[in-house]
Amino acid sequence: MDIEQFRKAGYQAIDRICDHYSSVQDRPVRPSVKPGYLRNALPSAPPIKGEDIEDIANDFQDLIMPGVMHWQHPSFFAYFPAAGTLESIIGDLYAATAMNPGFNWMCSPACTELENVTMDWSAKLYGLSEDFLNSTNVGGGVIQTNASDGAMVAIVAARSRYQALYPEVPTEKLVIYVTTQTHSLGLKAGLVLGLPVYAFPVRVEDNYSLRGEDLREMIEMDRADGKHPFILIGTVGTTSSGAIDNIDEIGETLLDYPDIRLHVDAAWLGAAFSCPEYRERCRVPAINKYADSVCVNFHKWGLVSLDCSGLWVRDREHLTRALDITPPFLRNPDGESGTVVDYRNWSLALGRRFRSAKLWFVLRSFGVEGYQAHIRKSIRLGEIFAERVRQHPETLELVTSPSFSLSVFRIAPSAVPGVSEDELNELNERYYQNINKRKDIMLTQTKLNGTHCIRFVTGAQNTEPHHIETAFRICFETAVASIKEFMEPKRLGNCPQRQILSRMT
Amino acid sequence: MDIEQFRKAGYQAIDRICDHYSSVQDRPVRPSVKPGYLRNALPSAPPIKGEDIEDIANDFQDLIMPGVMHWQHPSFFAYFPAAGTLESIIGDLYAATAMNPGFNWMCSPACTELENVTMDWSAKLYGLSEDFLNSTNVGGGVIQTNASDGAMVAIVAARSRYQALYPEVPTEKLVIYVTTQTHSLGLKAGLVLGLPVYAFPVRVEDNYSLRGEDLREMIEMDRADGKHPFILIGTVGTTSSGAIDNIDEIGETLLDYPDIRLHVDAAWLGAAFSCPEYRERCRVPAINKYADSVCVNFHKWGLVSLDCSGLWVRDREHLTRALDITPPFLRNPDGESGTVVDYRNWSLALGRRFRSAKLWFVLRSFGVEGYQAHIRKSIRLGEIFAERVRQHPETLELVTSPSFSLSVFRIAPSAVPGVSEDELNELNERYYQNINKRKDIMLTQTKLNGTHCIRFVTGAQNTEPHHIETAFRICFETAVASIKEFMEPKRLGNCPQRQILSRMT
Repeated sequence: MDIEQFRKAGYQAIDRICDHYSSVQDRPVRPSVKPGYLRNALPSAPPIKGEDIEDIANDFQDLIMPGVMHWQHPSFFAYFPAAGTLESIIGDLYAATAMNPGFNWMCSPACTELENVTMDWSAKLYGLSEDFLNSTNVGGGVIQTNASDGAMVAIVAARSRYQALYPEVPTEKLVIYVTTQTHSLGLKAGLVLGLPVYAFPVRVEDNYSLRGEDLREMIEMDRADGKHPFILIGTVGTTSSGAIDNIDEIGETLLDYPDIRLHVDAAWLGAAFSCPEYRERCRVPAINKYADSVCVNFHKWGLVSLDCSGLWVRDREHLTRALDITPPFLRNPDGESGTVVDYRNWSLALGRRFRSAKLWFVLRSFGVEGYQAHIRKSIRLGEIFAERVRQHPETLELVTSPSFSLSVFRIAPSAVPGVSEDELNELNERYYQNINKRKDIMLTQTKLNGTHCIRFVTGAQNTEPHHIETAFRICFETAVASIKEFMEPKRLGNCPQRQILSRMT
Repeated sequence: MDIEQFRKAGYQAIDRICDHYSSVQDRPVRPSVKPGYLRNALPSAPPIKGEDIEDIANDFQDLIMPGVMHWQHPSFFAYFPAAGTLESIIGDLYAATAMNPGFNWMCSPACTELENVTMDWSAKLYGLSEDFLNSTNVGGGVIQTNASDGAMVAIVAARSRYQALYPEVPTEKLVIYVTTQTHSLGLKAGLVLGLPVYAFPVRVEDNYSLRGEDLREMIEMDRADGKHPFILIGTVGTTSSGAIDNIDEIGETLLDYPDIRLHVDAAWLGAAFSCPEYRERCRVPAINKYADSVCVNFHKWGLVSLDCSGLWVRDREHLTRALDITPPFLRNPDGESGTVVDYRNWSLALGRRFRSAKLWFVLRSFGVEGYQAHIRKSIRLGEIFAERVRQHPETLELVTSPSFSLSVFRIAPSAVPGVSEDELNELNERYYQNINKRKDIMLTQTKLNGTHCIRFVTGAQNTEPHHIETAFRICFETAVASIKEFMEPKRLGNCPQRQILSRMT
């Protein structure tokens, strides 16, 4: 493809992105395709001769797009949002003129420095302490691919530090602490690192968040048992219910156990740190006081598209001591002199895409105020949904207090008096399946201490109040229908004769 | 930013990419900036009010671009190439209309299936065995962020399998095998996983590649010592010299030790598998016969931009058994039924960018023939350079046989008769520093068994023979100057009186 063909294809791609984002709300949020739909539609081998870019682009529209779930659809309320801002797309496009693997300063100085600066900007946007700034040359921020990488890096750094302090402790005595509400990244890190992961149970009455005294009790118990916990992954905004661990209590407790590091996973909720009025509730002061590291995914609620996850650490040397391997072919005077940051020593991998370009475009084009406006709007929309649920206690209930833009709800026990908790779970599972059959709305389910519930989270940029009202209407009507459907055979079940009769007629 | 502002900004970005790629050859390959140049040029905090996208884009040109190393420059011969094809940029742009974290089939069916299909296409392009195809439902391919991730996944899967077979073996007895020439990803995986990494020495006379009998000897020795090697990372195309381990001998040896898995890292050289005439030399038949997994970075020589690294495995269950964690909020009927692939269980992380779009665009727009033409051209260009070195034995020498597009050379011992090997290394180090001062050409250095040398690798799409000739002229003239510079004080040093005289006059 020559430059002019590229220009034409590029303009066309831009036009199609325009068409897509200006019309996505008119399409189903979920695709109606069956497993194998695309494999069956494509040849089994690549073409021998090169094909025209326009044909490929048309196939993208005709074959790929019908199988896409639209995470930026205004009626997407599932999982967590996945940012797809136009500003981010532009930033990523500019990054194409600086394609490089970014493993050290020398291999593209601008890329390293822009990451360095934008991570400080974001730290300030989020109200993080000075300690986490790159400008301190002690702490600092780095862009990771995702929150799993961030947690893994934090765990590896903590393990390395612990083993340096206590070289006599056998590896199999080391323990990672999480709660039952921690994202699966905790368990996965345990699988990958071959370390046991102890998950603290958390209580409904604590809104599924970890308390300091429970932590102390567990540490004492596990230590008495010869175990060596070396890191706790606290969560600010759990996936299931948006629970916020009591970072202040946890941090205060850990003062008595200074060998146990504290990593805070705020992958989703971290974007809300941008609004000063939410910081107290999000435990930002406690994070600033106690956390060794904290992670926020820009690519969830934070307006930057995948992949872009921020990790800030209080002491960069904990990372570099654990991860630095500098082979001869990467040695260079700037790196050796210590005047520059070589980000490969802050991450699991060597190479990395130039991600700070899109972060820079987003932070500048939205500005602090625009960023805050996006977060506040999502929360306001989430509150409308929660309020509607509260207005229908005869049918629905919030299972736990809404957490910012996330509400967790279910069919209320009062809607089906006399049924057991198991039956209620079964009903709610069917209720979710009924919602899940629809293509015009997307929600996900979860379990909270055995209770089957449904999550509703806002955050797509173009969601408006009327989308929430429509979504609630669907949730409400589907609940009523699900209750009816559930109760019918039950009544028959209680009355065998009628069941037989109905079969006969 | 509204849609029309985006369209305008998008067109402008496309135009600037056109300007960039049509003029990059006229600019220095290396930036002339000092550490801190960009940090000092940027404000210390993000703006409060949003800024105009055009201003940001202009700042990108004015502030960022001067600090960028141009990996796609035709005179970039350092590290390994980093693909930045226009086709890939278009593909990545289309992916922006399907922004999603791709962790399972349901969260965007098209993305999972396109990855599934394009990984089969690439396997066929590279001549990999049927066993590695997704269509078998036994083996399969997955896009990883990079080769470090791919190796880590392979190691974790191997460790998990080994520990399932021998649950009584303590973790600290497990050992990862690499060679001294393996990419630092091996050592880094050891650091991250907390496992010892044993690096086999390799011989100059074997062209720095691992032999089967050496492997057998080491296994026997280590086992006798109570160690449990469970995986060997073989390399096809090492970073330092492009060495190719004897995968056939290694594989044959490992038949006697079936508990030791074989992962082949062909991150760079794998792209050459696309040409049937190179497969034998690249040990593709042996990979097909013996390897449990193999990795090729599309984003190096493979025409797809960062991040995009292919990992193929012979048995996908080894991955999913080691890495599957399915929390309730990710459970869905399609995933549970086993009819679809959920790629989160093939990787370290949960979320992932839609990378197969650009792979699809590249494979189709180049076609098999276009892909092969790119590889063959790079190799031809590399051979020109190697030939020029051979033509000047009085000054330069190839340190090892050129490996496809990679030559490793140095100032020849014959150019400085009588100097020790240490002095020769010192001279070559200075020689490299002299080349490294230039901005119009970019090469990197390495050490091979203690010998200081310089790497020259082709692969940028727009390199032409005249770039090679110019590069060689620079290398040659700099060598001559470096030799002169090196010998001058030496001669004086050997003749103290003349040294004094010269000071006096």
